Amino acid sequence: MNKGRLEAFSDGVIAIIITIMVLEIKVPEHGETLATLKPLIPKFISYVLSFIYVGIYWNNHHHLLHAVKKVNGSILWANLNFLFWLSLFPFTAGWMGEHHFALWPVITYGTVLLLAAISYTLLVIIIKKTEGQHSLVVHAIGNDAKGKLSLPFYIVGIALSFINPWIGFALYFLVACIWFIPDRRIENAIREQSLIDDNKLH
Amino acid sequence: MNKGRLEAFSDGVIAIIITIMVLEIKVPEHGETLATLKPLIPKFISYVLSFIYVGIYWNNHHHLLHAVKKVNGSILWANLNFLFWLSLFPFTAGWMGEHHFALWPVITYGTVLLLAAISYTLLVIIIKKTEGQHSLVVHAIGNDAKGKLSLPFYIVGIALSFINPWIGFALYFLVACIWFIPDRRIENAIREQSLIDDNKLH
Amino acid sequence: MNKGRLEAFSDGVIAIIITIMVLEIKVPEHGETLATLKPLIPKFISYVLSFIYVGIYWNNHHHLLHAVKKVNGSILWANLNFLFWLSLFPFTAGWMGEHHFALWPVITYGTVLLLAAISYTLLVIIIKKTEGQHSLVVHAIGNDAKGKLSLPFYIVGIALSFINPWIGFALYFLVACIWFIPDRRIENAIREQSLIDDNKLH
Amino acid sequence: MNKGRLEAFSDGVIAIIITIMVLEIKVPEHGETLATLKPLIPKFISYVLSFIYVGIYWNNHHHLLHAVKKVNGSILWANLNFLFWLSLFPFTAGWMGEHHFALWPVITYGTVLLLAAISYTLLVIIIKKTEGQHSLVVHAIGNDAKGKLSLPFYIVGIALSFINPWIGFALYFLVACIWFIPDRRIENAIREQSLIDDNKLH
Repeated sequence: MNKGRLEAFSDGVIAIIITIMVLEIKVPEHGETLATLKPLIPKFISYVLSFIYVGIYWNNHHHLLHAVKKVNGSILWANLNFLFWLSLFPFTAGWMGEHHFALWPVITYGTVLLLAAISYTLLVIIIKKTEGQHSLVVHAIGNDAKGKLSLPFYIVGIALSFINPWIGFALYFLVACIWFIPDRRIENAIREQSLIDDNKLH
Repeated sequence: MNKGRLEAFSDGVIAIIITIMVLEIKVPEHGETLATLKPLIPKFISYVLSFIYVGIYWNNHHHLLHAVKKVNGSILWANLNFLFWLSLFPFTAGWMGEHHFALWPVITYGTVLLLAAISYTLLVIIIKKTEGQHSLVVHAIGNDAKGKLSLPFYIVGIALSFINPWIGFALYFLVACIWFIPDRRIENAIREQSLIDDNKLH
Repeated sequence: MNKGRLEAFSDGVIAIIITIMVLEIKVPEHGETLATLKPLIPKFISYVLSFIYVGIYWNNHHHLLHAVKKVNGSILWANLNFLFWLSLFPFTAGWMGEHHFALWPVITYGTVLLLAAISYTLLVIIIKKTEGQHSLVVHAIGNDAKGKLSLPFYIVGIALSFINPWIGFALYFLVACIWFIPDRRIENAIREQSLIDDNKLH
Repeated sequence: MNKGRLEAFSDGVIAIIITIMVLEIKVPEHGETLATLKPLIPKFISYVLSFIYVGIYWNNHHHLLHAVKKVNGSILWANLNFLFWLSLFPFTAGWMGEHHFALWPVITYGTVLLLAAISYTLLVIIIKKTEGQHSLVVHAIGNDAKGKLSLPFYIVGIALSFINPWIGFALYFLVACIWFIPDRRIENAIREQSLIDDNKLH
């Protein structure tokens, strides 16, 4: 089946999500001074964090799909499930920014982060299963330390928000920092594979 | 003619439709408690159902176009006609959610579902006609049991909404469940074709 | 230079334009009866006409670019100029629908139609010039009767709107009907070219 | 790694940015006379300038990526950073148009222009570093006179806005005029490369 169209559709949806989030920072109708922008700062911070998260996911998705060889119905639906949770980012980011990182908006934001992470993990599992034990993807992802690490971080972040929402926000930010570096393991594995293929040719 | 651009354009439009539907769930300007989210639940349910429907259509469209070999003017316009009805989903989904599954919003939602299904059937018919009796598409789609089943379901759903709109909603949901599994018939047919092609080569 | 990315970018912009037009039909916040939809009818008619127009342009653009072999800076900018005028469709369509086909909205709509048509003609001229006298594009487009016809129709439509805006609207609709059929001349020319190429191979 | 998906994603984001900017020109709910459009003129001018800028960036990005052979994690993130600043254009363009080119909106607009230019320069530097001293990109971009020129122009434009915002606006416009012509240096270099490659084949 056609991997290209799955990538193109995902790119389209992720491109739209990352861009419509900025629409939550509404143009002020009154006031043309620098002070007019001040109340928009929390929204801007929320936008920056969410932009980084969507960027991370696009990046990881790019790497993951790159190593995939077969696409079937289960992968299509696991991918749509992942895009669904990603599509809630503009709402949760907007609410968190609108209410200056208050308790429930921060918890809701973290919950959607958690559900997006779970749905991404599910996509990885289904792809691994489809590709088989000795595939490039399985070799490339390895023990997936970063993926395993981020889930408890979100949960702890959500829990500690009840003490102070800023702790939650700080933990979400920390996970973004961990993920910031793209997964070089897959890149390395592909490079190794190319070397093996090249050697076979000679 | 160029099938790739038809797929890319359709992917773009469907990606935008599936994403802008979420804009109907507006960020609450006042209230930062969990209770603030409660009135948004009907909109969320409506969004989930519509996301699944658009996902199904993208999935089926992906399979259908995959098996197509020639694209002509009639297919382009049948495809645009299908995208037109799909583009009304954000409106009908928003209205149904806004008014908690009241009579006329549910009927309007069902009518657009029905018209989208008819326009998709039309696209299938035109593609079948273009590709010819012995084409991969015709072989793959077969007797199209699911397609034939969903049309009367929508009509019955619309009719029973006059008794109780929730019956209509339940029927729309049931059709989504039927369609949820991607059409493996086309996948199978393509696999068979590849096997035949492979055999011819040897 | 890379024709694929010009097509992909244009597809993206046109897909967004055709889809955001529907956002002008806003979900009614109050009222859940069928009567609530009645004031939306002019907006819906305006949306249908504009959807057809954008569909026609995508279709023609698809055919035009398909026959193009070289892309340079002039073509890129002529294409962006064309997309600019197309991007004003959601505004003019929304205004015309909002004010029930009143004089100035209808004239503004027609003016943007005219400017989009001029910018498209300019794109065709620049492509013809780049590709050269004996190119596939020049052969395919021929004397461009439909293109030459639509410009005066828009002008007459705009002028007659001062008598009655509905005459203007009727003329815009008529042009859409003329253009509705995709330009088979290009398709035919490409088919002929393929036949010639095939003959050369044998 | 896959250059095509980086281009496709960037095209998607840029296509959405260039199109949602037009949403800032809102359909007037009251008034159907020509005079109703008059207050929208500053927004329209702001939209035209921003459309040209996004068009320039797409054009340059197109040329830059065209000459790239390898894509790695650093390039992906430098590209996302560039897209981030570009995504703020609809906001700053809308604010500048809404407040008729007042001091702080014009300064904010110029600052985002400056930051987008810096992020683009950063992307160029990282690509040059990745591709190496003797690559096509390095040869093609040369001493990058236009790039070096535009940064001080933005800074001077921002500074002179304190005397009169229209001077700032005029300078932003001037930079657009300088960049308007696509970077033919890269086109030329690619043409030369093809000639060299062709010669090697014969």
